[in-house]
Amino acid sequence: MPEQNAERLQRIHVAALDEILGLAFPVLDDGFVRVVDYMGDDAAVVQAARVSYGEGTKKVSDDRGLIRYLLRHRHTTPFEMCEIKLHVRVPMDAWRQWIRHRTASVNETSTRYSIAIDRAQRTAPEQWRIQAANNRQGSDGELAPDAGAMLTQQEADLQDRIRAVYDERLEQGVAREQARKDLPLCTYTEAYWKIDLHNLLHFLALRMDSHAQQEIRDYATVIGDQIAARWVPITWEAFQDYRFGSLSLSRVERRILAEAGQGRRDEARAIADEAGWLKMSAKTGDLVRHRERAELETKAQELGITLPWQKD
Amino acid sequence: MPEQNAERLQRIHVAALDEILGLAFPVLDDGFVRVVDYMGDDAAVVQAARVSYGEGTKKVSDDRGLIRYLLRHRHTTPFEMCEIKLHVRVPMDAWRQWIRHRTASVNETSTRYSIAIDRAQRTAPEQWRIQAANNRQGSDGELAPDAGAMLTQQEADLQDRIRAVYDERLEQGVAREQARKDLPLCTYTEAYWKIDLHNLLHFLALRMDSHAQQEIRDYATVIGDQIAARWVPITWEAFQDYRFGSLSLSRVERRILAEAGQGRRDEARAIADEAGWLKMSAKTGDLVRHRERAELETKAQELGITLPWQKD
Amino acid sequence: MPEQNAERLQRIHVAALDEILGLAFPVLDDGFVRVVDYMGDDAAVVQAARVSYGEGTKKVSDDRGLIRYLLRHRHTTPFEMCEIKLHVRVPMDAWRQWIRHRTASVNETSTRYSIAIDRAQRTAPEQWRIQAANNRQGSDGELAPDAGAMLTQQEADLQDRIRAVYDERLEQGVAREQARKDLPLCTYTEAYWKIDLHNLLHFLALRMDSHAQQEIRDYATVIGDQIAARWVPITWEAFQDYRFGSLSLSRVERRILAEAGQGRRDEARAIADEAGWLKMSAKTGDLVRHRERAELETKAQELGITLPWQKD
Amino acid sequence: MPEQNAERLQRIHVAALDEILGLAFPVLDDGFVRVVDYMGDDAAVVQAARVSYGEGTKKVSDDRGLIRYLLRHRHTTPFEMCEIKLHVRVPMDAWRQWIRHRTASVNETSTRYSIAIDRAQRTAPEQWRIQAANNRQGSDGELAPDAGAMLTQQEADLQDRIRAVYDERLEQGVAREQARKDLPLCTYTEAYWKIDLHNLLHFLALRMDSHAQQEIRDYATVIGDQIAARWVPITWEAFQDYRFGSLSLSRVERRILAEAGQGRRDEARAIADEAGWLKMSAKTGDLVRHRERAELETKAQELGITLPWQKD
Repeated sequence: MPEQNAERLQRIHVAALDEILGLAFPVLDDGFVRVVDYMGDDAAVVQAARVSYGEGTKKVSDDRGLIRYLLRHRHTTPFEMCEIKLHVRVPMDAWRQWIRHRTASVNETSTRYSIAIDRAQRTAPEQWRIQAANNRQGSDGELAPDAGAMLTQQEADLQDRIRAVYDERLEQGVAREQARKDLPLCTYTEAYWKIDLHNLLHFLALRMDSHAQQEIRDYATVIGDQIAARWVPITWEAFQDYRFGSLSLSRVERRILAEAGQGRRDEARAIADEAGWLKMSAKTGDLVRHRERAELETKAQELGITLPWQKD
Repeated sequence: MPEQNAERLQRIHVAALDEILGLAFPVLDDGFVRVVDYMGDDAAVVQAARVSYGEGTKKVSDDRGLIRYLLRHRHTTPFEMCEIKLHVRVPMDAWRQWIRHRTASVNETSTRYSIAIDRAQRTAPEQWRIQAANNRQGSDGELAPDAGAMLTQQEADLQDRIRAVYDERLEQGVAREQARKDLPLCTYTEAYWKIDLHNLLHFLALRMDSHAQQEIRDYATVIGDQIAARWVPITWEAFQDYRFGSLSLSRVERRILAEAGQGRRDEARAIADEAGWLKMSAKTGDLVRHRERAELETKAQELGITLPWQKD
Repeated sequence: MPEQNAERLQRIHVAALDEILGLAFPVLDDGFVRVVDYMGDDAAVVQAARVSYGEGTKKVSDDRGLIRYLLRHRHTTPFEMCEIKLHVRVPMDAWRQWIRHRTASVNETSTRYSIAIDRAQRTAPEQWRIQAANNRQGSDGELAPDAGAMLTQQEADLQDRIRAVYDERLEQGVAREQARKDLPLCTYTEAYWKIDLHNLLHFLALRMDSHAQQEIRDYATVIGDQIAARWVPITWEAFQDYRFGSLSLSRVERRILAEAGQGRRDEARAIADEAGWLKMSAKTGDLVRHRERAELETKAQELGITLPWQKD
Repeated sequence: MPEQNAERLQRIHVAALDEILGLAFPVLDDGFVRVVDYMGDDAAVVQAARVSYGEGTKKVSDDRGLIRYLLRHRHTTPFEMCEIKLHVRVPMDAWRQWIRHRTASVNETSTRYSIAIDRAQRTAPEQWRIQAANNRQGSDGELAPDAGAMLTQQEADLQDRIRAVYDERLEQGVAREQARKDLPLCTYTEAYWKIDLHNLLHFLALRMDSHAQQEIRDYATVIGDQIAARWVPITWEAFQDYRFGSLSLSRVERRILAEAGQGRRDEARAIADEAGWLKMSAKTGDLVRHRERAELETKAQELGITLPWQKD
């Protein structure tokens, strides 16, 4: 038996999370996310970090300051000390993106073992998104209502037809593992998904991002704003400040902005030129389109710095 | 610059694998597996193990003996020292099972970015498998030819219809990321898949197994018999002997077999009884069905040992 | 806000583990292991497995039977759904072996940041182990008491001297990160160590094994027998039965035992001969020593099977 | 056999790396790093990315532009497609930091199996570093020569004494696994270390950083500047630009700099005040020291932006 005089612990509980334990936050037309269990909280991050630091920092930093310091300097292991387990219901095509994150533990409903969930995600008439012109993997605005209505009706008919074929195969005795093969990619599935806080934040940074596909972004937003915010409010705030709302300047960008910001316009121009950002089109006499230069111009504008190739 | 008098190395090449580099081994009706690159071979396993052992074993064991020793005793790190990269074309439903193995690196074709591959896996009339009665997640035999022919025709019509809807959505301007949502689960995708030898063997142990679904089993069999066998022939032989063809006896099974094998039938029976394996049905007067007892009976028969509750 | 009519959950608690939460189990002369927090229990394993199986098995298997089935057939993901966090104090040389397990999360005391723990593991006179003759990496018995007493005194003097040098360096203003460089490998360190149940069982299978070094084995035994046994008693029992107490027969061993067990001695001998296990020494006229044959002989004896090259 | 008409591949070779294959780059007084083998190069990163993008980008981007785009936007999987294997000789205390990176494969010399390497890292008189005052885990400058000389002599005597005790234990028959326990933390060890390019870059970002301990930084610098630079020159250049030389602005920093840069000093001050960065000391009448404010001041100075609480 353990020593009698040792320090006794109480398990960490987060009242704000206990309140919503097991409740399903609806996502999309028939999906949900619910918290099954969790381990640790903001204090557990601090507790683990203090082991690394020994006694040394106990007085120096308060908890909030320490968490912000850890996140700002991209420390990771203390955030691994918290863990959360979710039960999700999600279309398989969004799930395909989801499980590319290899750092989670997963148990998913098997459609070999059981009949597939009788529900695929359906798109409302106003939800058909237009292919973006300037971003091959994005969308931009929605289709007109009447075009949308047609596609929605067509989708409903198609999904009904597919399900009928699936049911007929089962009736004919076809093995479930084979009968499912023509179900739509957006058929709903369910899973338990367990991940530590560090890897959850990484998942949310990518999937709450404006470049993520709308469907998985809806899930990520619920997990972030409804669940992480209740679970680890200090970490969540720090994540907003240092990761989600941060701006990164590359070495070249720093150098150009530094020269331009300090009024050395020629030096700034020389650096951009050397980087190949200032090629002129012989035809138009204008600067040739350049992705990195365009990104810098946006950043410079935000910081109130005029670049040497721009008009004041 | 490095020291001049240091030992110089040549890169490891495997002639038998170089011969098939880049060649596509066909799988299913339109899939393939091809080797893109690799690092290491049987000798690299030995080389890494000898670092662990220092100079000590150089004389003791020959390479083959060392590899077999490592695999028999479930050493893993020396096998991680070899790496292989494959290019695969595979239906998405098989791919779903494939990427549950989290220890590989993956780049998959994005159907957000590009139009989906215009091909879904099609099932020939004689390939429709019947749901197994005694195994909820397996299949057992094939449907009769005429039933199969009907399902095959129905599948072709359905897949054509789904593709037509997909194409129409694209024509209407729907974003690719959304248009794809009703494509069949068995739509082909392509990916680069990179994994180390230890984790590859684990993948093959699970996916070449008779309980794996036929489709992924077809891929695993090609990877094992055509690729791993050429790449690391000694490791592959040892894997057959110690993993794939091995038999495991649980503690209770060992105890029962030991007693029965040495003629102590009462002791053997007592152990099985205590484990709850010998309950009698009041109705039939026979032993109640028990999964673990049934498994033991199969093993005992193989070893020529008669169990005390069996007739000689 | 989540739906009102959704199923509500209570967090899982394990009374037997809550009782020892935070209490330090002593290990070695100055080490300990204590449970900081945990998530899940045996029921959580079942809960996750049932998601995979859908509704299908609810009636079929009771919880204990399902857990045993999962472990027997080496299912892994349901066991990943439980997590435990320990606080350990351990000599750095044992810790070196410990953190080779890459699947855990770790926060260790930094001796860059803080002064090193003023304690190295000391060996009692009766604890000096003799190098094993037949196993290069093991030990076998203990030194005689007087030899041990001398070594223990020598160790105490050495550790005192090393610590004095460390202290003097710090006094001279040397950076902690450098001053520590000559501290003994067995200096105690502390860490938080968090791991899921599947990977914990893998750790315990390796580190409770008789081939593990005594020091880490002492830690593993406490974690297994005192902590895992309280936390997940059904899983722990199944682990004993199917992993720790199991016996594995290779393909060749199976074939030889099957032939011998069924009385076909010539066939059994032929298989062993073909495998190269029956080479005769020209000098002695006896069988040449062969590691795999020796292993088989031990297994055959346990099962009461006489091998054809053995005397009845 | 594979299809005859399939595309044939040649293995990727990097001439600049082949030239140094196996050669030992010396590090510290007796350590080294040498390349054992590798898989892939810059082109393999591009090749994998193009699979993701399908045919779409073939014309758009040249290879260099694509690699820079991938690294700038923190894409990771294409960089996982390259792998490198190193043989290193390194003091155990630096190795302890090294193997905290859990994404590599490792085979290390076992001092259970073999006698420990008869060499510990020795510190020259001019290499004793002074504990930093303003950074608990860093160093700052070196000790005076005479103090250094004394410590160096003391270290040599101590290491000789420790080794003599180790040798005597072995002579007495003590098991190697136990005899080693008082060897210094800086005893040299050797290992094979294999890692993919993405994780190597992450390792280098942390260990080439000015906050890393000098010893591991020496190793990382050799791996980066001598090996990675030869292996994947385009990726290495991009890494310098976007990771190593980059500057990150938090959400608050962005907002303050934007307001200040655009001349809205009051708004800038209000944001800093709300964040708690502008507390005044009642005693001195100056701003209280604040770590985040100090970091921002450094960044603002670089960009030529005057903050409202600073004098012009």
